[in-house]
Amino acid sequence: MAGVEVSNKQVILKNHVVGFPKESDMEVKTSMITLKVPEDCEGFLLKNLYLSCDPYMRSRMTKHERPTYVESFIPGSPISGYGVGRVVDSRHPNFKTGDLVWGMTGWEEYSLITSALSFFKIEHTDVTLSYYTGILGMPGLTAYAGFFEVASPKKGERVYISAASGAVGQLVGQLAKLSGCYVVGSAGSKEKVDLLKSKFGFDDAFNYKEEEDLDAALRKYFPEGIDIYFENVGGKMLDAVLMNMRLHGRIPVCGMISQYNLLQPEGVHNLFNLITKRLRMEGFLVFDYYHLYPKYLEMIIPHIKEGKVSYVEDVAEGLETAPSALIGLFTGRNVGKQVVVVARE
Amino acid sequence: MAGVEVSNKQVILKNHVVGFPKESDMEVKTSMITLKVPEDCEGFLLKNLYLSCDPYMRSRMTKHERPTYVESFIPGSPISGYGVGRVVDSRHPNFKTGDLVWGMTGWEEYSLITSALSFFKIEHTDVTLSYYTGILGMPGLTAYAGFFEVASPKKGERVYISAASGAVGQLVGQLAKLSGCYVVGSAGSKEKVDLLKSKFGFDDAFNYKEEEDLDAALRKYFPEGIDIYFENVGGKMLDAVLMNMRLHGRIPVCGMISQYNLLQPEGVHNLFNLITKRLRMEGFLVFDYYHLYPKYLEMIIPHIKEGKVSYVEDVAEGLETAPSALIGLFTGRNVGKQVVVVARE
Repeated sequence: MAGVEVSNKQVILKNHVVGFPKESDMEVKTSMITLKVPEDCEGFLLKNLYLSCDPYMRSRMTKHERPTYVESFIPGSPISGYGVGRVVDSRHPNFKTGDLVWGMTGWEEYSLITSALSFFKIEHTDVTLSYYTGILGMPGLTAYAGFFEVASPKKGERVYISAASGAVGQLVGQLAKLSGCYVVGSAGSKEKVDLLKSKFGFDDAFNYKEEEDLDAALRKYFPEGIDIYFENVGGKMLDAVLMNMRLHGRIPVCGMISQYNLLQPEGVHNLFNLITKRLRMEGFLVFDYYHLYPKYLEMIIPHIKEGKVSYVEDVAEGLETAPSALIGLFTGRNVGKQVVVVARE
Repeated sequence: MAGVEVSNKQVILKNHVVGFPKESDMEVKTSMITLKVPEDCEGFLLKNLYLSCDPYMRSRMTKHERPTYVESFIPGSPISGYGVGRVVDSRHPNFKTGDLVWGMTGWEEYSLITSALSFFKIEHTDVTLSYYTGILGMPGLTAYAGFFEVASPKKGERVYISAASGAVGQLVGQLAKLSGCYVVGSAGSKEKVDLLKSKFGFDDAFNYKEEEDLDAALRKYFPEGIDIYFENVGGKMLDAVLMNMRLHGRIPVCGMISQYNLLQPEGVHNLFNLITKRLRMEGFLVFDYYHLYPKYLEMIIPHIKEGKVSYVEDVAEGLETAPSALIGLFTGRNVGKQVVVVARE
């Protein structure tokens, strides 16, 4: 295929977004691309197969006044995000035509990757390939690092996970069970709650939308309090959790998805509990933990193959469905890790 | 004196307090006490010399619905708090008549101490005795533990301290300077700001009451951001600090004095910075660090004697002034550590 000019469908961000994002903030356009790496570029050409929809991408849709941890998307250009693809041409010494890779790619059929820094070559191909957008990719390492490196769990501890059926949460719960913890998760539908209990082996789970009093709900599920809260949502949930933490509890802060579309984040009122219960609340980003990726893969791949760890994906078919799939994250429409299939081969 | 019956002035809490405490929530009464430990009690009788006014005492004035880190005061009984005293009679094997001690005593002239657990015998008497309510007592160890054990400072780091002229803050700043850090403090009057710069050697200081935009003020004093924020006040200040922290910054949470008299604590909106900057926010209580007290004394006493560390006290004369001195903490009237002298000998 190398050298051929082909059409290239792309998902373009039309404008920076304020408030809740809409499908119409994006548009699908078609341009042309030559499947050959230019001579002056030490990169590779990628045929994108699976794209990852992740909550942090909301931040990239915003125009930031001060520099932050991610760069804003550029209006008029394709969205970028983690994805799995196959190299169709390469001038990079570490990647050759035919290689399967995952890393930061474009929301389009083909991407010219000029900076290969974020890319990993996929060595284990006897597992579901799209897993490299989830359990075997960034969200998987996020769960692993946040739980083991930040939360420092001990056997028998009580673990609470919000957004527990999501790309990260479902894995944190299973890692916590494998570590001998008592695990309760919350999610936003009956279907998700059932999944937590039946598929992922959580000790218990509840639908936060059906709880009028989150504080009372947490007191019911954790009469002796919470040792580890894996924070994915922020806002009111965090406030209720702070009331229910145990002495010397830890709160690894992974995300705050309930806040991303608000013009002004909600106020959190119960931080005084940090003192009275000597709590540690620690934010983390997966970027700081990529050195652990080989160790993580070595641990998780046998668990997947032996069926000890499950992973549920919500798969949207075709690049045209990508805008809707991405927006769906913020209404909680996805059940499990949201993936977009661009092509299967 | 042992065995004599004498009058005993006491500061009584009249009722549990809601909102801002007033002097009239307390009253000074006189009862009688026999200066002899009853035969069935393994305790000691203490002549109180210096009493400590500390912000955490506000929490003890509240009736708590759920158990918390301190017990509520009992209406009709004397207030209790840290103090320095001389043993006038003892049936306790470790304390004898004439010993100087510090620990949790009553706001009264004489206290029968039935639980000696919180008491330390004062070995070094060649320093200002009232310092055992401050730099050589609970607030001193709080500063030491919070700064060295929780914040883990490194030479050259940028340290910000709120309520910086208070019992804990003034010492944290000096410990930070001794550790080679850049130190800025804030306080609520020109006099306090001058003290920070001239007496305690802070690199800079500002009056937070004169800053309309705390975020902008912090950006001015920390153009490259804050590595360590020693949190004493909470609320809006914390929100502004979160905007100005550097990557991998630490926030030891010692107190939140701006919030103690509010019926509903203010909301903190900028917690998402915990993630983007990978911040660690950790509450602590001095109770967990008393094993370090001998090590701390060994370090700090030479510094005090050599004049390398200063300590400023605001001394109220007489038990009658105690209610007003305590209330003054919450309006920031005190300059330095607030002490009440009950007797000097």
